[in-house]
Amino acid sequence: MMRVDGIATAQLPVADRGLQYGDGLFETMRLHRSRVPLLDRHLARLATGCRQLGMPYPGDQVLAGEVAELAHAAPGDGVLKIILTRGEDGRGYAPPPHPQGRRIVARYPLLPLAEGPLSVGICRSRLGSSSALAGLKHLGRLEQVLAAAEAQAAGWDEGLTLDAPGNVVEATRHNLFYLRAGKLWTPPLEHCGVAGVMRALLLELLPGLGLLGGEAPLPVDQLPEIEALLLCNAVSGLCRAGQVDGRMLGGGDLLESLRGPLAAAGVTWFG
Amino acid sequence: MMRVDGIATAQLPVADRGLQYGDGLFETMRLHRSRVPLLDRHLARLATGCRQLGMPYPGDQVLAGEVAELAHAAPGDGVLKIILTRGEDGRGYAPPPHPQGRRIVARYPLLPLAEGPLSVGICRSRLGSSSALAGLKHLGRLEQVLAAAEAQAAGWDEGLTLDAPGNVVEATRHNLFYLRAGKLWTPPLEHCGVAGVMRALLLELLPGLGLLGGEAPLPVDQLPEIEALLLCNAVSGLCRAGQVDGRMLGGGDLLESLRGPLAAAGVTWFG
Repeated sequence: MMRVDGIATAQLPVADRGLQYGDGLFETMRLHRSRVPLLDRHLARLATGCRQLGMPYPGDQVLAGEVAELAHAAPGDGVLKIILTRGEDGRGYAPPPHPQGRRIVARYPLLPLAEGPLSVGICRSRLGSSSALAGLKHLGRLEQVLAAAEAQAAGWDEGLTLDAPGNVVEATRHNLFYLRAGKLWTPPLEHCGVAGVMRALLLELLPGLGLLGGEAPLPVDQLPEIEALLLCNAVSGLCRAGQVDGRMLGGGDLLESLRGPLAAAGVTWFG
Repeated sequence: MMRVDGIATAQLPVADRGLQYGDGLFETMRLHRSRVPLLDRHLARLATGCRQLGMPYPGDQVLAGEVAELAHAAPGDGVLKIILTRGEDGRGYAPPPHPQGRRIVARYPLLPLAEGPLSVGICRSRLGSSSALAGLKHLGRLEQVLAAAEAQAAGWDEGLTLDAPGNVVEATRHNLFYLRAGKLWTPPLEHCGVAGVMRALLLELLPGLGLLGGEAPLPVDQLPEIEALLLCNAVSGLCRAGQVDGRMLGGGDLLESLRGPLAAAGVTWFG
């Protein structure tokens, strides 16, 4: 189920700069009981990304309208994805002076989520570092494709991705919070990684619970020192690693203790 | 004029992983008098890239056949572009075990090329560093889009792109050779940049002419020490910077001296 610039179609012009150059952004959102609980945050991130890239933003009203239409088109849970591209104007890398932009809103079935704690490994392929693109959920996700292929081949539920110097940055489709000395810390994302909306929500909630350490790098050789590893994204919410690289981790009680505060903030679909 | 998996259409399924994740590669080629002079090199690079990414390669015969069809469909020069994606199989980053792949072959008019030496500036936005993707002409070209936007806004013909430590790597759509101490050198591409087919051809030709220095980094603060800057790609061939960052550069005779050897190697469309 899909709308391209408001029209029900599953096709796109080959000339679109999203395909040609990865010139666009996307959001992947959880649909729960015909609602998208974190929609405001997703739209705000899209608007910020569009400003950063000099791309037109279609406006909250247009996007929220199409999201609502697809959300109510069928019962049950699902995943909604918004893709915004710079459109099909111009040839060559230089963007046209007044790009039209293009919006795609699509609804997909919810893929089966892992039950219980995840088995997590460490990917060999490293994330690149890009000061221009770090934090953005842009369309060029080939590094994540390669890392996810590794995780799949190894039979892990998820794979941790490291930057070139060897810091754990994120997982292929989750942001991370790790428990150390009684506080939760999350890797900084100045050089690579995607700054997810669930990560942002947790960074707001955790201080009130006395649980936030802050942003701090996690060198891979310090992984044996962490007590728990939480993984978050807007589709699965929050889960934990049962083991990383073969070492068992705790955190079951910690995860349970976060469900109430998250539910109060709108993340009600898990637990 | 376009073929998608051999069919004359200008549309593509939105589900294609090329759009969704930048999961693909491309080549941009010069069409000159109904021929694509460096076609073998372009196809070899695509095949190598597909192997590196674990993507299916359609085979030289299929691609060369479609290239020939489009090359002969109309008289005159032009540009041919091949895009290969992993296809529309699978959802989520992890690639399907047996991806179908998709091929797009398109013909475009030749955009007007700059006449004479190029005016070249230095882009502020830096290239990221990615050990997994360096050298590949993959679909995620957002850094080049941002750099090209800078060059366009500044009114330059081309913009030099630097890596994070401040070495000149390439230009937004050209590889570079710089003249220093009577030899031509080209920046190494281990960490970022696209390893172009014209660059590869020049690396083969220059030793026989006694002109090749080798691969050597060019820190941006050493730009004032170079005597000439040549820019190359498969569409425009070889050209030179008339000035970089306001400083005049020579190299006109050098450029002339390379036309004969390049023509003998099949690059006959310029000069």
